[in-house]
Amino acid sequence: MPRRIRLDLHYVGTGYAGWQLQPDRPTIQGTVETALERVLRAPVRLHGSGRTDAGVHARGQVAHFETASLLPVGTLRSAINHYLPWDIQIMRVSEAPPAFHARESALSKEYRYRVYRGDLIPPHLYPFALHVEDPLDLEAMRRAAASLVGTHDFACMQSNGSSAETTVRTIRCSEWLEDEDALVYRVVADGFLYKMVRTIVGTLIEVGRGRRSVQSVEEAMRARDRGRSGPVVSARGLHLWHVTYPGDQDVVRAEHCGEARDVV
Amino acid sequence: MPRRIRLDLHYVGTGYAGWQLQPDRPTIQGTVETALERVLRAPVRLHGSGRTDAGVHARGQVAHFETASLLPVGTLRSAINHYLPWDIQIMRVSEAPPAFHARESALSKEYRYRVYRGDLIPPHLYPFALHVEDPLDLEAMRRAAASLVGTHDFACMQSNGSSAETTVRTIRCSEWLEDEDALVYRVVADGFLYKMVRTIVGTLIEVGRGRRSVQSVEEAMRARDRGRSGPVVSARGLHLWHVTYPGDQDVVRAEHCGEARDVV
Repeated sequence: MPRRIRLDLHYVGTGYAGWQLQPDRPTIQGTVETALERVLRAPVRLHGSGRTDAGVHARGQVAHFETASLLPVGTLRSAINHYLPWDIQIMRVSEAPPAFHARESALSKEYRYRVYRGDLIPPHLYPFALHVEDPLDLEAMRRAAASLVGTHDFACMQSNGSSAETTVRTIRCSEWLEDEDALVYRVVADGFLYKMVRTIVGTLIEVGRGRRSVQSVEEAMRARDRGRSGPVVSARGLHLWHVTYPGDQDVVRAEHCGEARDVV
Repeated sequence: MPRRIRLDLHYVGTGYAGWQLQPDRPTIQGTVETALERVLRAPVRLHGSGRTDAGVHARGQVAHFETASLLPVGTLRSAINHYLPWDIQIMRVSEAPPAFHARESALSKEYRYRVYRGDLIPPHLYPFALHVEDPLDLEAMRRAAASLVGTHDFACMQSNGSSAETTVRTIRCSEWLEDEDALVYRVVADGFLYKMVRTIVGTLIEVGRGRRSVQSVEEAMRARDRGRSGPVVSARGLHLWHVTYPGDQDVVRAEHCGEARDVV
């Protein structure tokens, strides 16, 4: 029986057309599969916890594959990283139980969206944040964010192109963290619809700019009307932060609001 | 009489063949001159405080140019930034006295070199740091760094290609700062020779690895022998941090060791 291997990956998405394999365009999945095939000398199909769009980054993407190789996990990690470009790195390689599936086994995912508030965005931060110069009403943004926690129909927060059967999702945490020059939107849910995080952030920023009320967000949600929520903001600020699986007892994750320690 | 304008720039050097104008290769100077010419609709010659090599970054590069334009400095800044790519940004535009010269008026410069110590370098930090996995003897590195403070002949710490008349320089601070996962070498001097900072860092890392003694650094310095110092380390980790001019009283700079607050 082949081994099932779990990869925990970190990547800068700037140079890629997203996670999912596409002909003639660089993708995260394609680049990692190529590296795996060079190490394992056999065709490999990599399954991610989910797709990330073009330009979206990941601090904690998870994927799995099957292999007949007997290479120890430590050797695998060095060998795969050897064939990967600098902007994709495998942070951990581990043996997974036969039933483990990166997408199907995931219990929840955490995304973070970074908004830079300074006068000018320093070049080294540009690829990782949206720059908003206008003053933002953080209190209103926090109230609107909190109103999304719970099990709701998020139809108004998705873009066309989603193949999901239901638009109901459960958000466990939806909050704004404050850093020196940045605001970070942190959201943990059992799953996300297509462009859901970027639509939520676009809507919350409109609230922060005073262009819409907290109540209007609740109304858009109830109406299930995409036309009543805000614009999809740039992929640059979005980071897939963490995916949680059953048995991930080595990492105690703060899935609820007010418990995040590391902002970055 | 034309106005003399000072620019304070921040750039990510990864995509450039260095500061100095070169035909057919992207350079910082060339890119900023092109943006200036689009704004001012006249040829512009930009003078930097000094050249930075290919791949070297700047947090606080300074340059000047002359113009007959009457545009206010605030307008100039927005207009120039409008024509610049994301990886070069003008942080400040100011009127400079007629005698101001970005290179000749500089009193001192501060460089920082970042060394990442973790097991694997996260992709978003890769373009900005050298990755060293070996354990480093920080105490020895600190002693060797401190031995460079003062007025010395740095002939052993330069690469060929320097046109400097003398190899004597005065270092005011040479120290290692410690961050969570990184070591940062901070050096302030009245001037630097060609590849001097990267040769010093390469030498100090050899000390940290136990491959050479603190005393061997002092001996290489006395012998003025390039063959007795360490290798030139990657441009990636190097950041031109600050240039000090007479009258920069708005910024009180800590030019001596033990006074840096911001590590980054």
